[in-house]
Amino acid sequence: MSDLRKDPIVGRWVIIATDRAKRPQDFARLETLKTTGFCPFCRGSEANTPHEILAYREPHTSANGPGWRVRVVPNKFPALQVEGALNKRGDGIYDLMNGVGAHEVIIECPHHESSMSRLTVDNVREVLWVYRDRLVDLKRDPRLVHGLIFKNVGALAGASLEHSHSQLIVTPVVPISVWEEMTGSLEFYNYRGRCIYCDMIQQELATGSRIVLDTPNFVVFCPFASRFPFETWVLPKQHSSHYENIPRQGIEEMGTVLKTVLSKLELALDDPPYNYIIHTAPFDTKEIPHYHWHLEIIPRLTRIAGFEWGSGFYINPVLPEQAGAFLREVEVDVGTGGTY
Amino acid sequence: MSDLRKDPIVGRWVIIATDRAKRPQDFARLETLKTTGFCPFCRGSEANTPHEILAYREPHTSANGPGWRVRVVPNKFPALQVEGALNKRGDGIYDLMNGVGAHEVIIECPHHESSMSRLTVDNVREVLWVYRDRLVDLKRDPRLVHGLIFKNVGALAGASLEHSHSQLIVTPVVPISVWEEMTGSLEFYNYRGRCIYCDMIQQELATGSRIVLDTPNFVVFCPFASRFPFETWVLPKQHSSHYENIPRQGIEEMGTVLKTVLSKLELALDDPPYNYIIHTAPFDTKEIPHYHWHLEIIPRLTRIAGFEWGSGFYINPVLPEQAGAFLREVEVDVGTGGTY
Repeated sequence: MSDLRKDPIVGRWVIIATDRAKRPQDFARLETLKTTGFCPFCRGSEANTPHEILAYREPHTSANGPGWRVRVVPNKFPALQVEGALNKRGDGIYDLMNGVGAHEVIIECPHHESSMSRLTVDNVREVLWVYRDRLVDLKRDPRLVHGLIFKNVGALAGASLEHSHSQLIVTPVVPISVWEEMTGSLEFYNYRGRCIYCDMIQQELATGSRIVLDTPNFVVFCPFASRFPFETWVLPKQHSSHYENIPRQGIEEMGTVLKTVLSKLELALDDPPYNYIIHTAPFDTKEIPHYHWHLEIIPRLTRIAGFEWGSGFYINPVLPEQAGAFLREVEVDVGTGGTY
Repeated sequence: MSDLRKDPIVGRWVIIATDRAKRPQDFARLETLKTTGFCPFCRGSEANTPHEILAYREPHTSANGPGWRVRVVPNKFPALQVEGALNKRGDGIYDLMNGVGAHEVIIECPHHESSMSRLTVDNVREVLWVYRDRLVDLKRDPRLVHGLIFKNVGALAGASLEHSHSQLIVTPVVPISVWEEMTGSLEFYNYRGRCIYCDMIQQELATGSRIVLDTPNFVVFCPFASRFPFETWVLPKQHSSHYENIPRQGIEEMGTVLKTVLSKLELALDDPPYNYIIHTAPFDTKEIPHYHWHLEIIPRLTRIAGFEWGSGFYINPVLPEQAGAFLREVEVDVGTGGTY
């Protein structure tokens, strides 16, 4: 089992997952993306993944066989595992606990497709709905406090398989970046009495220059202090702190929005490697007034070097207003569901 | 001139440096490392860099000509510039200021050498001393509050030129990561009355399992909560918060230590891409009891993916104790100055 260890200075947790490695030498080089040959995520290869946790299937088909549209399985090389006790303990000035949690893979389609933007809108909607289903299920476990849904596309963004998929890592501690967002937004709320994200949405819509997409219930923009060129955020206009509370009709619209934005980014930037991450409040609160869930998309066009690691400062060579205008003007057709 | 923009939620600053770019399309792909042909950092190419700020030279040689051993020049594509006023201002809920600061390149040797570990110990010492000289000079500017010295080696670590060099970025605000270290260590000091880094050194020396090198005045270890495989920290045993206060004899010993550690990492990991960063207190305080300067070396063996971006959580597949033992046992000979 892996360890969770805490940096005693800044309070950042780290997963030491040695089950993923054999010898130090094995880490001397970065993994590359497997793009040819056998794909364990394709329809018909179900026996090559761990047993499925959940799948949306055609009637009269069986678990771990074909007939699914979206399928969730445990990660074959999990960073965290559901079994066991946390056993929180100290070691002199250090703190650690067992690597209890969940690490799941969401296989987004049964056919071999590398880009989520080429899935049908209905398929994207089912992926968004399965995210919700997994969070609702996992938050019942009292040992677990936060669920992070993310997607890695392309080797430079950390993907090791090409077939369109995303991941869910559920942790027994609140990740430091989530904690910082919760604390920062609470501070604003205490001072102003409003959600900082709601204020940001208002200002972005009024300014207009960074807006990529404006639909009845969602807004997409390149944030004012973008860390990365073409960094793009998707926010629901209606205040809500927890992604898993999204209503069915929100998913309907968000499916179209997400497919549209990913299509725009791929067309504008020639299929860049990217990550997206759903930022959502920890499990241990009900709806809260100061935090606002959202999805952040990060194209991986620049390298992270010593300056960024040492300072938390980022150097972005593209004006967010220029990125916003560029993406706003890219025309795409996402098929069923309209393009907004 | 570039903008400094603040993320209103977590307080992170970003440099929007559009002078470095022409069109959005120019950022569609990562830069690669230039390893062949003309090198602007070599002896004889002095006219191809901006005018030198400082150089350690042989007697009777002139600025911007040959005869130097270590040379400091402004970055040709600076993220920040010394000229101009900060002009701090608001834009609705956002805060920004002009990109005032310094961005310098330290060219570490006149001959074409890609690895600092192959420089002589005396050469490494002069590099460490020039870091100190530049910090001492720049901290006299009241607009500037922090100096970050860092090194990028290899394309995967963000280097764009092969010739051994490091960089210095001086900012008019305290970078968020520095702020977090200052705050975290102050909290420990307020509670325990001791420097957390001094405590850590004591525990590491007592435990021994993560120690890479132990010399009279320095200790090198793989930290308990290492984010990256083979992450390695170099700390002075004597408490000191500001790197620029290092005495001449500290530099003497640190030169040998740094050359030894980099040689070990390169031998153990087959010349990995890496970054190192000097973590030091902001300019606006004198020596403080709670912070302890140090140098962090990060081999870039794993990719940063969506999980890390979204959570600030890191997954490290190598036990720090295993990395420490591995590096401790690698034997290297660093020539003049002894190997400790």
